[in-house]
Amino acid sequence: MTKIEIIMADVRAKIATVTYLPGTRLPSVRATAKHHGFSPSTVVEAYERLQTDGIIVSRPGAGFYVCDIIAPLSLAAIGPNLDRAVDPLWVSRQSLETTSEALKPGCGWLPPDWLYAEGMRRGLRYVAKADTSVISEYASPLGLLELRQLLTRRMAGLGIEAKPAQVILTESGTQSIDLIFRFLLMPGDTVVVDDPCYFNFHALLRAHRVNVVGVPYTPTGPDVDAFASVLNEHKPRLYITNAAIHNPTGATLAPATAYRVLQLAQAAGLYIIEDDIFADFETTPAPRLAALDGLSKVFYIGSFSKTLSASMRCGYIAAPNEWVEHLLDLKIATGFGGGQLAAAVVLSALTDSGYRKHMAALHTRLARARAQTVPRLTKLGIVPWLIPQAGMFLWCKLPDSRSAAALANHCLSKGVVLAPGNTFSQSKNAESFMRFNVAQANDAKIFEVLAQALN
Amino acid sequence: MTKIEIIMADVRAKIATVTYLPGTRLPSVRATAKHHGFSPSTVVEAYERLQTDGIIVSRPGAGFYVCDIIAPLSLAAIGPNLDRAVDPLWVSRQSLETTSEALKPGCGWLPPDWLYAEGMRRGLRYVAKADTSVISEYASPLGLLELRQLLTRRMAGLGIEAKPAQVILTESGTQSIDLIFRFLLMPGDTVVVDDPCYFNFHALLRAHRVNVVGVPYTPTGPDVDAFASVLNEHKPRLYITNAAIHNPTGATLAPATAYRVLQLAQAAGLYIIEDDIFADFETTPAPRLAALDGLSKVFYIGSFSKTLSASMRCGYIAAPNEWVEHLLDLKIATGFGGGQLAAAVVLSALTDSGYRKHMAALHTRLARARAQTVPRLTKLGIVPWLIPQAGMFLWCKLPDSRSAAALANHCLSKGVVLAPGNTFSQSKNAESFMRFNVAQANDAKIFEVLAQALN
Repeated sequence: MTKIEIIMADVRAKIATVTYLPGTRLPSVRATAKHHGFSPSTVVEAYERLQTDGIIVSRPGAGFYVCDIIAPLSLAAIGPNLDRAVDPLWVSRQSLETTSEALKPGCGWLPPDWLYAEGMRRGLRYVAKADTSVISEYASPLGLLELRQLLTRRMAGLGIEAKPAQVILTESGTQSIDLIFRFLLMPGDTVVVDDPCYFNFHALLRAHRVNVVGVPYTPTGPDVDAFASVLNEHKPRLYITNAAIHNPTGATLAPATAYRVLQLAQAAGLYIIEDDIFADFETTPAPRLAALDGLSKVFYIGSFSKTLSASMRCGYIAAPNEWVEHLLDLKIATGFGGGQLAAAVVLSALTDSGYRKHMAALHTRLARARAQTVPRLTKLGIVPWLIPQAGMFLWCKLPDSRSAAALANHCLSKGVVLAPGNTFSQSKNAESFMRFNVAQANDAKIFEVLAQALN
Repeated sequence: MTKIEIIMADVRAKIATVTYLPGTRLPSVRATAKHHGFSPSTVVEAYERLQTDGIIVSRPGAGFYVCDIIAPLSLAAIGPNLDRAVDPLWVSRQSLETTSEALKPGCGWLPPDWLYAEGMRRGLRYVAKADTSVISEYASPLGLLELRQLLTRRMAGLGIEAKPAQVILTESGTQSIDLIFRFLLMPGDTVVVDDPCYFNFHALLRAHRVNVVGVPYTPTGPDVDAFASVLNEHKPRLYITNAAIHNPTGATLAPATAYRVLQLAQAAGLYIIEDDIFADFETTPAPRLAALDGLSKVFYIGSFSKTLSASMRCGYIAAPNEWVEHLLDLKIATGFGGGQLAAAVVLSALTDSGYRKHMAALHTRLARARAQTVPRLTKLGIVPWLIPQAGMFLWCKLPDSRSAAALANHCLSKGVVLAPGNTFSQSKNAESFMRFNVAQANDAKIFEVLAQALN
């Protein structure tokens, strides 16, 4: 960034975060120059460019003012001025945009042929023969009853008591979270996240213009003492976390931690979103906050994009009883009726006798991939923070405290997409960490590129 | 509503709309009693119940204060205290929730067997055989290229020049609008709507906490003089309207109106969303604002839920070039990658040789249904405001200025779901109007129930 761009970004960010309201007079050229330690001519140039962009206006003799029509929401402008390589949106887009030839050990999902494509194909053929109403009509507001019933049975297996009338189908896990955020959060509210946590939580929270506070994640869950002080100091409204297998660390919540977190949350009147999209990867079930809490302040969400297919969008929310009607109103207002087809295909694939067999084989395949990948990484001095019980992730420390962002930038130019640690970290304390996906790390070229880069 | 409930709803609404911030001291019991003309004991009871609900707290000797943790977003609370029968969400939910046995002349879509179910079935079977990446993987951020290319060719036929890189696939038409709202609007902004307009615009705008101003709709488009004064007086940020066939009136935008609206909008720096979900119903194409404007300030959106299927969710946005990247960031943050399957099925159905034939037959079928329905309504004194050139809607005036809301409530108890006028009207000036869907008005029972109710 040039000095001019720094000033422009600063003004844009203050407008985007409503620090500067429409009509606000900008600080004088002299004051801004002094503040940044730049020359006045740099500030003048920046202000003039902002004027050309239609963001501020000059009133002769009176200075510069923020235009009445303010700039549209720019997620890039709202966030802190991040290095693009650790911007959560950048990492998502790298994974989504790169061609299938690119190697993606930083990717957050399985390769397509590891998912349950056969079950999806059968589901599509089955649904092609369904009643015309299934083919053509909107779903009911809650969505396909049979799928909601199946989900409550699966939840019951994890100790979560939910009635089908508490389960709302959505378009995806992310949409589930977004809907709850819209419902619970106002700009300026504070939200607690795990540090590190799934990077798209950061992007989504940014879109909601809320304050985010991180709590260090330990191998058994969030650091409970730090969690207690954050509740005490910041009075947050919501805590969002993963169930089952934590992203990016692969850690599992211990029962004692779950119990203490919930006690603290209840005492503080905190809402919790428990994101369980990795549920089916578990081999030994971990405790669920939603089970302990009885869906009183916990919203439990999930989707099928990590095991069945990411191409057919379908997720769900199990919500506290009293919020179901409000969430449905919001779902209809913002997306109108859902469809029936995605839910019908997902139901068919999940109830298909092959799904269990597929998941059992996947567990074995992931264990094998983990066992292969760990020594290949440690040989390069890249050391897992822990060896997860299940799932696809390895959260690793780079040798000699190397910069993960620099490594990711370098490897991208060689066709290898990585996921640098600070993308996941609210405190930016994960500079020399990297998340690897063992299911996407089979190609020897990945380790050659890493070895060259680390030399 | 009891008097106590009125006071409670009033306080809740003021909290929801941020008129009362957390920590705000409520007006005294005496002042509130005087303001509403109720007794002080009623106010005390209402405040105590709000305290029980955890919304306000009493500080002894100092009065009542809004709690620091404010109530979650309730769309019902944010809106004016509407008669539930003219609440837009109520009408959506009636149509979505009622069983297929109910008669739904108030419904906004075609009966399932009028849609292109055969093409959807073929599309599902075709996609079941596609590459595993199509079955399993996220789409690219913009979505399936072939569908975006097809959409630009269709737009070109309407004079809209868009490149495939300007077209973003979404989950639905409503999600397209919601994404643009999130991008362009801040709470407190002003948005112009047609009066009357599609009722879910009201619900969605309510979820965005913006001010809404209506402009009367005439048989050739919005009243241009009223539009000019609204721009002048309210400095709105956005205008949202239908292209092709206006919902609920069935009117069509005249070229001269389109030109003047666009001139006024450009002079005022107004953004426009042009919602073209009824495009394929047109027999003679009307002008498109996006064509005149060259996608400079106009966002053009659509979906396939009214012709192909509402059960497979897929919509799109053609956006001004400079906003595409920002919209994509927001799409990823709020919904992550889209899927490929819905787009692939839609592409297959649209390019299928049967689609044109299906639409031609549908045009004829709708014209016949319109010709049958008009005399059945006029016989009851229910008179169309205009006879539309195309589409499914008839916007009708009831005899003797009868209340459409009362009629709708009565008919609902007889199993007939209607769409009363004020649901669509920002000014609530459509009390004795009713929208009928000619495709859902074939059953003689509808007219019997109406005749009895009007007697």
